[in-house]
Amino acid sequence: MTVQQQASDARIASLDLAAATRAEKDAALLLMADRLVERAADIVTANETDIANAHAANLSGAVIDRLTLNPERIEAMADGLRQLAALPDPVGDVVRGSTLANGLELRQVRVPFGVVGIVYEGRPNVTADAAGICLKSGNAALLRGSGSAMSSNAAIVSVLRTAVDDAGLPANTVQLLDATSRDSVKELMRARGLVDVLIPRGGASLIKTVVEESTVPVIETGVGNCHVYVDEAADLEKALAVVLNSKTQRLSTCNTAESLLVHSALADSFLPLAIEELITAGVTVHGDARVAAVSDDVVPATREDWGTEYLSADIAVAVVDSMEDALDHIRRYGTGHTEAIVSESVTATRRFASRVDAAAVMINASTRFTDGGEFGFGAEIGISTQKLHARGPMGLPELTSTKYIVTGNGHTR
Amino acid sequence: MTVQQQASDARIASLDLAAATRAEKDAALLLMADRLVERAADIVTANETDIANAHAANLSGAVIDRLTLNPERIEAMADGLRQLAALPDPVGDVVRGSTLANGLELRQVRVPFGVVGIVYEGRPNVTADAAGICLKSGNAALLRGSGSAMSSNAAIVSVLRTAVDDAGLPANTVQLLDATSRDSVKELMRARGLVDVLIPRGGASLIKTVVEESTVPVIETGVGNCHVYVDEAADLEKALAVVLNSKTQRLSTCNTAESLLVHSALADSFLPLAIEELITAGVTVHGDARVAAVSDDVVPATREDWGTEYLSADIAVAVVDSMEDALDHIRRYGTGHTEAIVSESVTATRRFASRVDAAAVMINASTRFTDGGEFGFGAEIGISTQKLHARGPMGLPELTSTKYIVTGNGHTR
Repeated sequence: MTVQQQASDARIASLDLAAATRAEKDAALLLMADRLVERAADIVTANETDIANAHAANLSGAVIDRLTLNPERIEAMADGLRQLAALPDPVGDVVRGSTLANGLELRQVRVPFGVVGIVYEGRPNVTADAAGICLKSGNAALLRGSGSAMSSNAAIVSVLRTAVDDAGLPANTVQLLDATSRDSVKELMRARGLVDVLIPRGGASLIKTVVEESTVPVIETGVGNCHVYVDEAADLEKALAVVLNSKTQRLSTCNTAESLLVHSALADSFLPLAIEELITAGVTVHGDARVAAVSDDVVPATREDWGTEYLSADIAVAVVDSMEDALDHIRRYGTGHTEAIVSESVTATRRFASRVDAAAVMINASTRFTDGGEFGFGAEIGISTQKLHARGPMGLPELTSTKYIVTGNGHTR
Repeated sequence: MTVQQQASDARIASLDLAAATRAEKDAALLLMADRLVERAADIVTANETDIANAHAANLSGAVIDRLTLNPERIEAMADGLRQLAALPDPVGDVVRGSTLANGLELRQVRVPFGVVGIVYEGRPNVTADAAGICLKSGNAALLRGSGSAMSSNAAIVSVLRTAVDDAGLPANTVQLLDATSRDSVKELMRARGLVDVLIPRGGASLIKTVVEESTVPVIETGVGNCHVYVDEAADLEKALAVVLNSKTQRLSTCNTAESLLVHSALADSFLPLAIEELITAGVTVHGDARVAAVSDDVVPATREDWGTEYLSADIAVAVVDSMEDALDHIRRYGTGHTEAIVSESVTATRRFASRVDAAAVMINASTRFTDGGEFGFGAEIGISTQKLHARGPMGLPELTSTKYIVTGNGHTR
């Protein structure tokens, strides 16, 4: 079946789905969860095919670990779906409402997008997660996972479709696209009119391709070259905690700090301390000349370091002479994801928060907090680094559009 | 100067503009208004060049009328800017806020996009209007008007830039792009990273080009193939008023009705009445077989009629056997702008409102009400027919993005 046909089927499914009540959607989510657990053995068997192929392709141990499904991980997928059922339904929320001077009643109401395309890499648990988030927000999902998880994804989607159907919603609420070639991504990007929004989740090159080539509206997610700026008015203890946590709490996430900017007033106090602790934590420090002067263990930074999202135990460190210099640096190299300042000065934090152009600004807090779960959203489909529609962690409301419903009594202009 | 350079200058201006207070922005708007009036004679002189060129190019009287500026029209432009000054500033609005379990204070705050590109046709008054709306929402504007208004637009922008500068904000808040060739539109569409959002205002072909070719995120505006569905449970008097007003109150706007769908139960009662009144009002009725049976004056409709945004004294009329048939028709031919139902049935209006996929749904009210002014927004930059970011009339808040500001006290995960 072509992507065009699948998108067309999704469109038809989306009509019933948009009209489904919260109770109907939650029942489907709970049945999806139960069925995943019941059919865990089948899913693990399908997963073994992917694992065998991954070994044959000499994929790394880390990649194979992310790909692996076992009963515990399948239980976790089911739990994710049950949590979605417990979250409020964004559809039908009245965003704005008023009665106009002429008596017309105006309501702006949240409605589903309709059909959401998601292109993602790696882990098969994203399949259940994305399907669930789309269903809860009333959207039909077109899922294009990675080739490496093809067999697992097919097994998961087959279980989910049967559950959705048994719950009385259209099976085509969840569809998996062909992952054997790039053609399905290309077709998806060109299905304007059938697909309402496309969310690429994955590496920088995937996202760049989709952003440049898609005629379907795109929500860009994820690339994070996040900075921590330690201001001259910083509390050094807090600064140390924030820097270490931002860099080392988890290395491979988009909200991990990749650069540290230290005010020159702290070059003799905080800087040596921070470098020592980072190195002790196993982090390679790439520094400018003033940073390199502090320790022999500092690797001289190249221009490239400032713009790199390492996603590894590396950090680029620079000394700046003012907050303006820090802001200039971030403006040049940042990706608009998360930028942090550590400072006790109200004037400084206020200026930084207003001047820095990012989805999230952390004041005396770790960059790692930019996350739907941490923000209390209950579910997250990704972190938007664009300014249109959604910016920052995207929960269920971010997967909806709105519609004005205007009620009169024969009103004319 | 290249568009790239202008966009880069706009980006720099946008930094100061984003930090400007409401008081500073309102002062600039009021000065812009005063200067337009003071310099009206110069603007009229510049306008005479465009008018002479329009005559030489044999443009129609209607086009020349829309192009013409006189002291009254310039006063109206100034009034528009003064009204903008009186509107609340969306920047800084807290959209969402909470204190997380760990004590982190979360605020989602409205911030300007940064740089907004607007491509528009026709009337030079849009120039002042668009510049003002962008300034009030904290955005630098890159304006690409039509070649036919080139001289007028240059004069207006020159006055506005001086006023903005004299008010202490960056002159590059308002810039006019070259309108002598299509190249400036192409460059604008490719200025991703410098331009945050592009809004095409104009005909269907301009919008289609921008949507397909732009790598800068686009907000689609305007094409409206709007329907009025007269349900079997309609009050015929209200239906007649709504149909006539929707079609004839103004012919050339995007919220004008282009099609009428009448339930077959009303084929002998309402339909002849509606056709008679429409024809009396000077409207050409293009009808299907059942409509043509009513009157010899009905022109047989072709398939093309159903999909046409006439913007003229024409209407396509069909008889449908059920609301489902009406919804199917709208799904096939509608553009997602405004769809109206006339019915006294709560069940029918509820179903129509939930099932029809459009930016605005009118229940017993004219399609002509889909308008920022009518909705009480005070200003409107266009009517979005897409689902991402903004849908329906776009006021000042729709020209902003958001930013999460998270305040802690050395918080780590």
